[in-house]
Amino acid sequence: MTKRYIIGIDLGGTNLRIALFGLGFKIIDRKNLNTANFGQKERLIAAIVDSVNNIIENNRLIKNNILGVGLGLPGPIDVNRGVVHFFPNIPGWCEVNLKKILEKNLKLQVFMDNDANLMALAEYKLGAAKGSKNAVCLTLGTGVGGGIIIEGNLYRGSSFTAGEIGHMPINERGPECNCGGFACLESYIGNRRIMREAQRIFKRDEVSLEELSRMAYHNNKKAARIWSGVGERLGVALVSVVNLLNPDCIVIGGGLANAGRILFDKVEETILTRAMIVQARAVKVRKAKLGNGAGTIGAAILVKENIKMKK
Amino acid sequence: MTKRYIIGIDLGGTNLRIALFGLGFKIIDRKNLNTANFGQKERLIAAIVDSVNNIIENNRLIKNNILGVGLGLPGPIDVNRGVVHFFPNIPGWCEVNLKKILEKNLKLQVFMDNDANLMALAEYKLGAAKGSKNAVCLTLGTGVGGGIIIEGNLYRGSSFTAGEIGHMPINERGPECNCGGFACLESYIGNRRIMREAQRIFKRDEVSLEELSRMAYHNNKKAARIWSGVGERLGVALVSVVNLLNPDCIVIGGGLANAGRILFDKVEETILTRAMIVQARAVKVRKAKLGNGAGTIGAAILVKENIKMKK
Repeated sequence: MTKRYIIGIDLGGTNLRIALFGLGFKIIDRKNLNTANFGQKERLIAAIVDSVNNIIENNRLIKNNILGVGLGLPGPIDVNRGVVHFFPNIPGWCEVNLKKILEKNLKLQVFMDNDANLMALAEYKLGAAKGSKNAVCLTLGTGVGGGIIIEGNLYRGSSFTAGEIGHMPINERGPECNCGGFACLESYIGNRRIMREAQRIFKRDEVSLEELSRMAYHNNKKAARIWSGVGERLGVALVSVVNLLNPDCIVIGGGLANAGRILFDKVEETILTRAMIVQARAVKVRKAKLGNGAGTIGAAILVKENIKMKK
Repeated sequence: MTKRYIIGIDLGGTNLRIALFGLGFKIIDRKNLNTANFGQKERLIAAIVDSVNNIIENNRLIKNNILGVGLGLPGPIDVNRGVVHFFPNIPGWCEVNLKKILEKNLKLQVFMDNDANLMALAEYKLGAAKGSKNAVCLTLGTGVGGGIIIEGNLYRGSSFTAGEIGHMPINERGPECNCGGFACLESYIGNRRIMREAQRIFKRDEVSLEELSRMAYHNNKKAARIWSGVGERLGVALVSVVNLLNPDCIVIGGGLANAGRILFDKVEETILTRAMIVQARAVKVRKAKLGNGAGTIGAAILVKENIKMKK
């Protein structure tokens, strides 16, 4: 019997991650590339094709060993047709039938979804939300993404764009957001916004988020106050999520999740003091378990689930 | 063959509505009572029992003709066990096993759920959300309630308390809400709050919402401005709902829904200008179709769905 593998790809604004998995999602091999190296759409697609072919060859496999290729993509996708509507942080993509292009070039079945959805799927199946029934997973980074598990299934919404927690307004009035809206959570707690605030407060040209976390950990009051503010604003959006969806689990991942207890404590405190009591008691807030690998794992799970459905 | 009927009950802070339905949800008979007439919990339960017995007798039926009794209740319910946690607007109810009490007294099967969930179920099966897949239904009244349909099913959440749109905060800071939270949508656009604002603006001791709607309809600028403000605040909460859940339909019912075009126009405008484009394009905002009857119809649907499940 042919041994089967799955390839999971996580395309982000910064990194292009490719990983080869066994059917139990054990990682066999992986490669990280720099997205910015490939510029135009055509070169990025060629890089994806080459990476898939390389990881197959390097592991002495042939196409017949590969069950399928899953992709997590940083923008809204028509999941059924495999069409990329656009990428907010990678220019030049507009209504691209990526599934068709990749399947033609790779001669493999390709499945794709939004990266935040695949992170949620991975954390639900193998990570911090395992065993829960209704979970909401967030990634805090340059953007604030989210994915929703409802009754044990990934919930995609009516046009595959559910889960945009980062674009829930937390005030009636507030800063303009990249999405065209106002006062969105992301416009307050996106990476760049926090770094700008830190630069202002510490009167320095550059303060990295790692440094800010380290300072907070060592009881620097100013740094702690920044993280506490981030936690409170995130908490306000999550009060809405908790009262609306009554989830049993909220998973927080992405770079900011490393800020540590101070952020999580403030999020939990805000939910406990402001959300309705039955809902607040029902929900656990957890740190994501799968780290940077969540995207490729989720992409691999997507392949296995869809191949199974087609049997 | 015995002809079968269903009894639907909608218990509100103001009205106790009882209705007798055929299996196709055609209304056969109905009765409205004043909730406040019954004071204590025991008297209210006795009134429910008497009303059910009376509507059966008055229609020359016997218990054997009744498939079951459904109840919509104004507070959080443990749907599986049939336990009322509490009613925010009717004092004296705390962890009451109402299902057990009613089944013992009525010798009929009893099913219950939150009133806003049953309104959503009714509008989805027979009203304004018919044919949609993912819908969010709101009732605007003294409180702001909500119910969520996900992939064609009522979504209740992890402890049966999903859908509390009225308790989504729309600001980081704001007025204290009855729920214990702050800046909740309901604390801005609940009936009483709007009436208080109208009294202040028109410098009168009493301004009814009907009058305020009439004035707005006849182009009274002050009245129009009040409704426009309500629509905008409701719109901000719905931007969160639309970006998070990507529904194809939002149904607005309850007393305030009669404010007319000015309210709906502002809600739609706010969604179109502030929600993400794919989500904003996917959603239709509609006025509820079933009016005051939605609660009893939803309660009857609940009975039919649950009896069916138990076959």
